Amino acid sequence: MEAPRCWLRLLDQTKLPDVEEYVDCDRVDQIVDAIQRLVVRGAPALGAVGALGVAVAMREGERDRWDRDRLDREVLRIRDARPTAVNLAVGVDRVKPLIDAGVDAVVAEALVHVAEDDWANRRLSALGADWILRTVGHRPVRVLTRCNTGSLATTSWGTGLGLVRELYVRGALGLVYVDETRPLLQGSRLTSWELTQDGIEHVVQVDGAAASTILRGLADVAIVGADRIADNGDTANKIGSVGIALACADAGIPFVVAAPSTTVDPATASGEGIEIEMRPPAEVVTFAGSATAPAGSRGFNPAFDITPARLIDAIVTEFGVVEPDALTSMRDHITARVSSASS
Amino acid sequence: MEAPRCWLRLLDQTKLPDVEEYVDCDRVDQIVDAIQRLVVRGAPALGAVGALGVAVAMREGERDRWDRDRLDREVLRIRDARPTAVNLAVGVDRVKPLIDAGVDAVVAEALVHVAEDDWANRRLSALGADWILRTVGHRPVRVLTRCNTGSLATTSWGTGLGLVRELYVRGALGLVYVDETRPLLQGSRLTSWELTQDGIEHVVQVDGAAASTILRGLADVAIVGADRIADNGDTANKIGSVGIALACADAGIPFVVAAPSTTVDPATASGEGIEIEMRPPAEVVTFAGSATAPAGSRGFNPAFDITPARLIDAIVTEFGVVEPDALTSMRDHITARVSSASS
Repeated sequence: MEAPRCWLRLLDQTKLPDVEEYVDCDRVDQIVDAIQRLVVRGAPALGAVGALGVAVAMREGERDRWDRDRLDREVLRIRDARPTAVNLAVGVDRVKPLIDAGVDAVVAEALVHVAEDDWANRRLSALGADWILRTVGHRPVRVLTRCNTGSLATTSWGTGLGLVRELYVRGALGLVYVDETRPLLQGSRLTSWELTQDGIEHVVQVDGAAASTILRGLADVAIVGADRIADNGDTANKIGSVGIALACADAGIPFVVAAPSTTVDPATASGEGIEIEMRPPAEVVTFAGSATAPAGSRGFNPAFDITPARLIDAIVTEFGVVEPDALTSMRDHITARVSSASS
Repeated sequence: MEAPRCWLRLLDQTKLPDVEEYVDCDRVDQIVDAIQRLVVRGAPALGAVGALGVAVAMREGERDRWDRDRLDREVLRIRDARPTAVNLAVGVDRVKPLIDAGVDAVVAEALVHVAEDDWANRRLSALGADWILRTVGHRPVRVLTRCNTGSLATTSWGTGLGLVRELYVRGALGLVYVDETRPLLQGSRLTSWELTQDGIEHVVQVDGAAASTILRGLADVAIVGADRIADNGDTANKIGSVGIALACADAGIPFVVAAPSTTVDPATASGEGIEIEMRPPAEVVTFAGSATAPAGSRGFNPAFDITPARLIDAIVTEFGVVEPDALTSMRDHITARVSSASS
């Protein structure tokens, strides 16, 4: 009898908003491909895929009679499929010790991870909305955001976009400015899709418009997610984020980073230690399959940038709001709150 | 016998880099359409089209027996076809007093305008290159630029890109980072096309990457053009420029604006008085005819932004380099140099 199969079903985000199509993965190759092609993306969502992906690898190993070394190598391939978001590694590492206890134990722990991510999203959204309303001091609050930090990037509610949703639920949300987020247009394709589904009023603008929108006083706060937060608060996020932070600092409006504590990487002291994924140049010099630049033009395509802690007004996790300063240690933030939560 | 025709032949910049196609305009409608659809764009090039366009209008008026009121209205339509670049109005206004002297006089004056633009471009490129080499203090100089400020945007050599060319000719140019410049991709389509033709080494990056490229120390100077420079030095330029200026200020590298004196509008005291053209939302939420955002998503599409003088290290015209400060009057700069040049 063949070993039972185990699928991970992913909404193919490369095809949104035109087509809602799912990809079923029952092999590590498919999971790694889905991660690298951004069928699934978003740091918290990658954490869930990392954890659940270990179960898929175990079933594949049973079918194909892998020894333990092979299984470990395959699990590592999932863990290393993309370098910047620490959540992917966190998800894998969380369930890996349970491999000897069997697939059911791994799946159970992965589902706890998913449930915790959902809870963390909702909690940080409430804490972040409290902080923003207190800091901005008026309603409605007009928000500028970037990339996609909603349910597509997480397991359900969203981080940055969860905070936008929370403001909306409280009746405190004004117009949302969505950067289209080249090269892959996660803003216009994904965030606009989520906001349209929720009936939240928004406009899509080119990425170059962000600084001007902020300096002209059209937004009250900028809210972004994070792919990795170093111990000092330096934050890796979608390319273009640091430009928004510079404009917020100049205009005197808050720049808010929203992320679950799993995005914090206390082992990395500062942004200098964060590896920035370089993605294929073709993403820049082509669009929907057609060339946008003359033949032979080279694209330069870093997927993320680093916003230094000095430009961040608030880092919101499910444990509270950190206002970074020279003495910030995100490790202390997480450790203190974890021990107070479990005491 | 029908009145002689007068054509303005324009390289269709909407079709570059794929196709090199020319549009012949012998009617005001065609000229206005070409300006509004960006068949021709770039502030200095618009100045030339404005001046030559008056001759086209005069010939059309002869054919269609317009009275002088009608001719004046048609000339005004050319002048007002786009609002932000002052050069368009400057070009029209320069030749308009010669209408009574006949088409030949208008064409002759327009060609002087074109020749002066070419001279101004070459002169400001030399002055700007001197300033940059002195300020940066090392070679090669790595440049970040945006939009298209080359021969396509002017009558031949270029303003911002003219300066890049000048550095190249002097053997002092390093890698050039070209922002793709959404929504219409003048960077990847036009600037990359010009640099490729000249064999100048460059990479194309998404607009969101500009701040990060600067903060990471990959560029030594940012050079942009201008669509209108107010008397105090505040500068309107392609949307996304002010974000580059903020990054340059933070990183401590110079932000340089290069433009002929015809781009200076001494009648406008500061950036607040500059009208920013709002272009069709569809330019943002579609790409090459396909939707990039869900049906019903609105685009927000200001074509330009204002960089305040305090963020500009040098404004280079053919008359010299102004380093803006609180007392800057671009009117004084132009007046002083014009009188010294003619004395």
